[in-house]
Amino acid sequence: MLRTVNSPVLRLSRPFHIPRVSSLPTRKLATTLRRLANRAVVYSSNGEPSSVLSTISYPDLPPPPPDGVNVEFLLSPINPADRNLVQGVYPVKKQTETLGHSSGVYVGGNEGLAIVKSVGEEAQQQFGLKEGDWVVMGKQQAGTWSSERCVGAQDVIKVPKDIGEVHGATITVNPPTAYNMLRDFVNLKEGDWVLQNGANSAVGEAVIQIAAHRGLRTINFVRNRTDIDGLKQHLQSLGGTHVFTYDDLSDKSTINHIKSLIGGSDPKLLLNCVSGKDTTSMLRLLGADATLVSYGAMSKQPLSVPTSYFIFKNLKTCGFWQSRWYNEHSREEREALMNAIVDIIRAGKLREPEHETVTIPGSTSDEEATQLVRETMRKVEDGAGRKVLLRVENVE
Amino acid sequence: MLRTVNSPVLRLSRPFHIPRVSSLPTRKLATTLRRLANRAVVYSSNGEPSSVLSTISYPDLPPPPPDGVNVEFLLSPINPADRNLVQGVYPVKKQTETLGHSSGVYVGGNEGLAIVKSVGEEAQQQFGLKEGDWVVMGKQQAGTWSSERCVGAQDVIKVPKDIGEVHGATITVNPPTAYNMLRDFVNLKEGDWVLQNGANSAVGEAVIQIAAHRGLRTINFVRNRTDIDGLKQHLQSLGGTHVFTYDDLSDKSTINHIKSLIGGSDPKLLLNCVSGKDTTSMLRLLGADATLVSYGAMSKQPLSVPTSYFIFKNLKTCGFWQSRWYNEHSREEREALMNAIVDIIRAGKLREPEHETVTIPGSTSDEEATQLVRETMRKVEDGAGRKVLLRVENVE
Repeated sequence: MLRTVNSPVLRLSRPFHIPRVSSLPTRKLATTLRRLANRAVVYSSNGEPSSVLSTISYPDLPPPPPDGVNVEFLLSPINPADRNLVQGVYPVKKQTETLGHSSGVYVGGNEGLAIVKSVGEEAQQQFGLKEGDWVVMGKQQAGTWSSERCVGAQDVIKVPKDIGEVHGATITVNPPTAYNMLRDFVNLKEGDWVLQNGANSAVGEAVIQIAAHRGLRTINFVRNRTDIDGLKQHLQSLGGTHVFTYDDLSDKSTINHIKSLIGGSDPKLLLNCVSGKDTTSMLRLLGADATLVSYGAMSKQPLSVPTSYFIFKNLKTCGFWQSRWYNEHSREEREALMNAIVDIIRAGKLREPEHETVTIPGSTSDEEATQLVRETMRKVEDGAGRKVLLRVENVE
Repeated sequence: MLRTVNSPVLRLSRPFHIPRVSSLPTRKLATTLRRLANRAVVYSSNGEPSSVLSTISYPDLPPPPPDGVNVEFLLSPINPADRNLVQGVYPVKKQTETLGHSSGVYVGGNEGLAIVKSVGEEAQQQFGLKEGDWVVMGKQQAGTWSSERCVGAQDVIKVPKDIGEVHGATITVNPPTAYNMLRDFVNLKEGDWVLQNGANSAVGEAVIQIAAHRGLRTINFVRNRTDIDGLKQHLQSLGGTHVFTYDDLSDKSTINHIKSLIGGSDPKLLLNCVSGKDTTSMLRLLGADATLVSYGAMSKQPLSVPTSYFIFKNLKTCGFWQSRWYNEHSREEREALMNAIVDIIRAGKLREPEHETVTIPGSTSDEEATQLVRETMRKVEDGAGRKVLLRVENVE
């Protein structure tokens, strides 16, 4: 249901709200008196998300400023980086915010799909935004684990509704990371090989699919596991050319087998989200003048490279961080990036990530909602598997 | 003494030579009959230079082909890479050569100063080379540990005589490595900081001087040693801004002191010839968007970098190899590079490397010359210190 925040109807509704909650304890009554229609998942100090996150409610938003839009978040993922930021181990400085009575809090969530609820005049004229549009966040750390927020019109990017809510909610981080890493470092042409590790990560799977879409061939490495054949089949069904385990790297005959598959057209790009010794072992599969791009370090080990690779094989190593990419690129470039990803989705070449949706119902109290958020985070911390997409409902 | 090889006079001299050596044993007589006027330091299989190197004598050169020049080497350094190549641990493939009766040998020496003895017609017309010119080698592995060789005119670069023999003999490897590393990776402007380790290496000292010449400031790291103050004074006298030891990197207050010296203008370039943990420790002194260029690995350890530096600080790491530079650049670019170094030398901003000259006298037998070469190599292997410049005389 579309609803213009701060509309006369809603403002008038406040007095009528009191009777409904008059039977609740005083403290609850006091907050409810302020017509706390919105909710956010917040923290005020760093720690494990399952311990430090809580939900707060806050009043309806005022109309947006001329260059702003009020948006309602439909679906916002819990990404690993979000958890690291709450833990205090992600190098992003967030400003504390004040939401209603709650001051000095950080609102969680970086990525998310939102629907435009009301638009400032400039925002309308300059960016063509209108009520009902779907938008994603072009600015980092927008606090997407919330129901409604006011954001700068220049910081959102419109996306079409035919891609669906799940693609919309997950389109700004993982697919563009894969897309940009395959584009910005090595000039790859059809048939070229790309090596990657952590191939079953969200980015890894996007790499496989976008590479396949471009006619690139991928050699994908994953950890060995009980159902390794199932995982190999899954990654190959996404378009992965070959899948191996890190264990294979210690077997010289497998190395030679991989080299024979490559057939002399040595890979010039290695995408790394693991580091540690397994990544070092992968270097021997690279050709001269190759680039190793790191976007993660799941092994929690450094990247260790024999110096001879740099000097004699002209290896380059660097990093990729989609957040920096957004900060360093114009609004037009961000839009072009989103359009490119939308095209791939529309072509049916990028699957929705496996996910489950957790709704924080508007009917729950903040205490109940906090418990639900913390339970969800515990499951995420246990590595239960599928990506969780949060839907924080307006408070009823 | 200038002498045109293969001149009628020399050809006529053969018969008259026999009586002089008629009292020598038959084997020696047989070789001497061929007028073995030249000598080279060669090896036919890899191993320690002090074991596998020997000298051979070979006849006067025929006149050069139209696009060639015959040159006489005046002075040729023994560089660490030369030793590694003999050991078989340097990734350069050399073709075996035939010199007179000696076939299947590799001639040692990559760098050297030579004087032009005779010039092919094209070489004269196209490259303006003439007898008596000083030239250095623009092509790698020219076999400079020899008296006279024929080389392609396009593979030599003229240098002026006023720079002196020692600068001429050492101008193609270390100074251009330093010059290019300070130019090709980061756009440095006057006052910018450069970090380096192995600062007392030949390249390290060239870095200090060329950086100072450009108004760049250097923070130089060396191993701690008994006479560390003397070394610090020496490097500062070359123009090094600050000198620290790797031990200082484990002291937080020294780190903070260095940071205060840098004063917020964080270095964007780290030149590395050490690798290992000391180099990892240096990373914290770098600013964002920095580049680490490796040109050596004296620790024999890999370069180990926490992945976060790549992702969040946008660190890039790569390598530099002057040999590759020559291979990838045109003759004009090589000449421009030499001219730039010559200008710095003429401006008095680049000192001759500390060195000693070892002459392989023309009066010695090949056996004696071999012993002298091997003794010299043993001294070099012991790390006696100063760079050795070989002068392989024509055989008398």
